[in-house]
Amino acid sequence: MNGSELLSEGRSVLKSQAFSRYIGAELVDLAKGHALLELVVEPHLLQQHGRVHGGVISYLADNAMAFAAGSVIGDVLTVEYKINYVKGARGQKLIASAHAEAVGKSLVVCRCIVEDVNMESERGVTCAFAQGTVVSVAVSKGTS
Amino acid sequence: MNGSELLSEGRSVLKSQAFSRYIGAELVDLAKGHALLELVVEPHLLQQHGRVHGGVISYLADNAMAFAAGSVIGDVLTVEYKINYVKGARGQKLIASAHAEAVGKSLVVCRCIVEDVNMESERGVTCAFAQGTVVSVAVSKGTS
Amino acid sequence: MNGSELLSEGRSVLKSQAFSRYIGAELVDLAKGHALLELVVEPHLLQQHGRVHGGVISYLADNAMAFAAGSVIGDVLTVEYKINYVKGARGQKLIASAHAEAVGKSLVVCRCIVEDVNMESERGVTCAFAQGTVVSVAVSKGTS
Amino acid sequence: MNGSELLSEGRSVLKSQAFSRYIGAELVDLAKGHALLELVVEPHLLQQHGRVHGGVISYLADNAMAFAAGSVIGDVLTVEYKINYVKGARGQKLIASAHAEAVGKSLVVCRCIVEDVNMESERGVTCAFAQGTVVSVAVSKGTS
Repeated sequence: MNGSELLSEGRSVLKSQAFSRYIGAELVDLAKGHALLELVVEPHLLQQHGRVHGGVISYLADNAMAFAAGSVIGDVLTVEYKINYVKGARGQKLIASAHAEAVGKSLVVCRCIVEDVNMESERGVTCAFAQGTVVSVAVSKGTS
Repeated sequence: MNGSELLSEGRSVLKSQAFSRYIGAELVDLAKGHALLELVVEPHLLQQHGRVHGGVISYLADNAMAFAAGSVIGDVLTVEYKINYVKGARGQKLIASAHAEAVGKSLVVCRCIVEDVNMESERGVTCAFAQGTVVSVAVSKGTS
Repeated sequence: MNGSELLSEGRSVLKSQAFSRYIGAELVDLAKGHALLELVVEPHLLQQHGRVHGGVISYLADNAMAFAAGSVIGDVLTVEYKINYVKGARGQKLIASAHAEAVGKSLVVCRCIVEDVNMESERGVTCAFAQGTVVSVAVSKGTS
Repeated sequence: MNGSELLSEGRSVLKSQAFSRYIGAELVDLAKGHALLELVVEPHLLQQHGRVHGGVISYLADNAMAFAAGSVIGDVLTVEYKINYVKGARGQKLIASAHAEAVGKSLVVCRCIVEDVNMESERGVTCAFAQGTVVSVAVSKGTS
């Protein structure tokens, strides 16, 4: 697949995730080992202090890492990940940027940064760092 | 606060989280160091393989751990957590059960198990294990 | 293998780890899905504040989880783990107790508690919680 | 402190860690928010497959992240970290390179890459990725 086919295929997968449609995420870039997942911040995504709920940020990081890994090894599932929230997000748009850092036949280690972006200035502030392990569905089927 | 006041206070906090209302979570129990957060599975919470989206499970674990810690040290924020998904959830109800395992003045370490529950048999199957660190808002304000 | 064969086999594996001999760890129990790894605290295992160095505690947790998983699925490697240190260890003996919480054909999720034990009273205080993912060597060979 | 004072101070701290002397680690660089910790691989650091034991790699990552954070906020303790092993290390030298990615008054989030380096070619291969949280001792004392 070339770059635009990969992105187009990725968008189909994202569209087939009911929860991603419900939450409103968009895949803005997908290349071998790299994914950018974006989400416009709306009032129903916040927590009690007026920041984006951590669950939303986790969703983005988890999904972006799965797409980054999937772009390299096909259909995947997240095995596990870890996330550090470092700043409350009160911006207008979140962008999760994920990279496949180490790729094996069935396991991929990814890292992700989630940024809180001001839509006018396009300036982003990092609000979370994540690192996780993604497995190809083929292997996973044998293992759970 | 006694037990029922704690639960009632916790429910107010949950209600003040727009995202928790949006996703439909309910706090079914809250005691010192322990929280049970429940979510009825609906079609818009699924991913492309017909299981509950990992982001939903992460949200539950993260939030349940924050409530478990908050029941002990007051207003809190999640610093970080790690989650292992161990089985795709296709049941009718998810229950995240979180415990505060180690409590300091400002940092609390929690663990959480998310179960996928059949509503008729009330039998649950573990779908995720999480472990995380929660900080009191007072300290956090000084630190980010 | 019965219980005592498993423990005897586990001890051979531990003995074949040069670093485990160097650091002085002993496998005191090994059953299907459960391992107890012990280490007598000596001065060369400390850090600058007179507590056991975190690296020692991490070693114990990592290795105990690998043994717990290996007792179920054979030769394994640790994929990843996360550890929270919750109390500085200044006792005489550390015991890492690890359990396989979810077992698949090739991936096992384990949890571990490391305790700091007073050798006279045999009372232990938890000094760390860990959670990790272990893979069978067979799968790992295909994947890295 | 200027750069060389920081490195010199860091080396004193490392020297005061009995376990770091025992294992043979050296601090080769320390700057604000960045630490390089090095370890020459010797036979007693290996596991049963002839690779460096994971516990050694974890020690390096943990300690390098603590030094990176400490270079910014002073005396610190590791709260928690997560590590993914991605390739067995069979080289001659390990180098852990840690960065402080987000710095608060008392909490610092760090990331670390551990490389397995061939001493002749000076070429390195990544063998682990870590991410963790470090706290200033002042805050920690109040919290555990």
